[in-house]
Amino acid sequence: MIPRISHAKSILPQGVRDLAQAFTKLPGIGPKTGKRLALYILQQPSSIAKRFSAHISRLHEVVQTCKRCFGLSERELCDICKDSSRQTDILCVVESALDVEAIEQAGSYTGVYHVLGGVLSPIQGIQADQLTLNELFSRVKAGKVREVIIALNHDIESEATARHIAREILSQGVTLTRLARGLPTGGDIEFADALTLTAAFEGRRKMPMVR
Amino acid sequence: MIPRISHAKSILPQGVRDLAQAFTKLPGIGPKTGKRLALYILQQPSSIAKRFSAHISRLHEVVQTCKRCFGLSERELCDICKDSSRQTDILCVVESALDVEAIEQAGSYTGVYHVLGGVLSPIQGIQADQLTLNELFSRVKAGKVREVIIALNHDIESEATARHIAREILSQGVTLTRLARGLPTGGDIEFADALTLTAAFEGRRKMPMVR
Repeated sequence: MIPRISHAKSILPQGVRDLAQAFTKLPGIGPKTGKRLALYILQQPSSIAKRFSAHISRLHEVVQTCKRCFGLSERELCDICKDSSRQTDILCVVESALDVEAIEQAGSYTGVYHVLGGVLSPIQGIQADQLTLNELFSRVKAGKVREVIIALNHDIESEATARHIAREILSQGVTLTRLARGLPTGGDIEFADALTLTAAFEGRRKMPMVR
Repeated sequence: MIPRISHAKSILPQGVRDLAQAFTKLPGIGPKTGKRLALYILQQPSSIAKRFSAHISRLHEVVQTCKRCFGLSERELCDICKDSSRQTDILCVVESALDVEAIEQAGSYTGVYHVLGGVLSPIQGIQADQLTLNELFSRVKAGKVREVIIALNHDIESEATARHIAREILSQGVTLTRLARGLPTGGDIEFADALTLTAAFEGRRKMPMVR
């Protein structure tokens, strides 16, 4: 058997390769996983593939952006903005709709949201006018907002975005807060990184009297 | 702020949830990843979603099974079975088309294949007639096969399948071989598991004279 040098020429049919490649465009999916997923779908009844295909193809048609908070919605206003039991004087500023989802799943926040649609990033060329920052400032200027909670991640771009928001909002007599940083529940001090530990020390709180 | 106990009720629009759920049917994709992928697709232009959708929907139409080796193909016979430069007297028996792909990418095998479409598994209810075992035996009985190489994994089901094949084929004067077991290239003895080490010792080979 003479070894042939073949540089990864796929023997899979074009249809499988096309789909495998489409999968690799998604975050976290590499070439091997792409092929495995394509083959897995091929092994399912074609009715399942048709349904999957339909979900993707009509996604953009059935989902729109809430015109108030810019979260995802099926109608002009999302369920949260329409919910009269929510406190409309507290605005939680998040990067994406998945953050809204995570906070809602936690179930302890009762205010409303403002979805930025990203964070300022000179490297990726994302500037203020590509985000919903002006819409946020308009909502705050309208005067009914008492507190703006910044719920952004802790990276350089998010820091810059938070500062950008602070510059605009702090002059308007609105309370501006930021989610606490510290050790996550169930987190192990032994394995905490330096920044988290530093933040946990800086944010330490006085324990109440215990009798 | 009064914590509400909410049990993971999603606020995402139905269309996003439908697609996220479809993704979780794929191997290795959980609920969080499913949502992330659905949202990622939503953030792309709808033309990309349409193309992705089309790849999935026409997958079953453009891909068929090679009538000789049962690998994947665009026509009745796959490219490997049609290739006159391949040795047709050596048959490599594999579980799935992805194994063919992996062996072809390695590029050192010049024979042809037989894709079983699975392995015998009483637990999952997969019996001999659901695989292409009879077709394998017919190919061997046709008389032009000199060697059958079993390239199955090393788990209980694959072992049973290999024994099943051996029982049928060994009586026909055909050489039956199995891929070597041992330490993988780049593998570290320190981290090798017991079975691999045992197999590596059992399969040890005499070193040639070095001058």
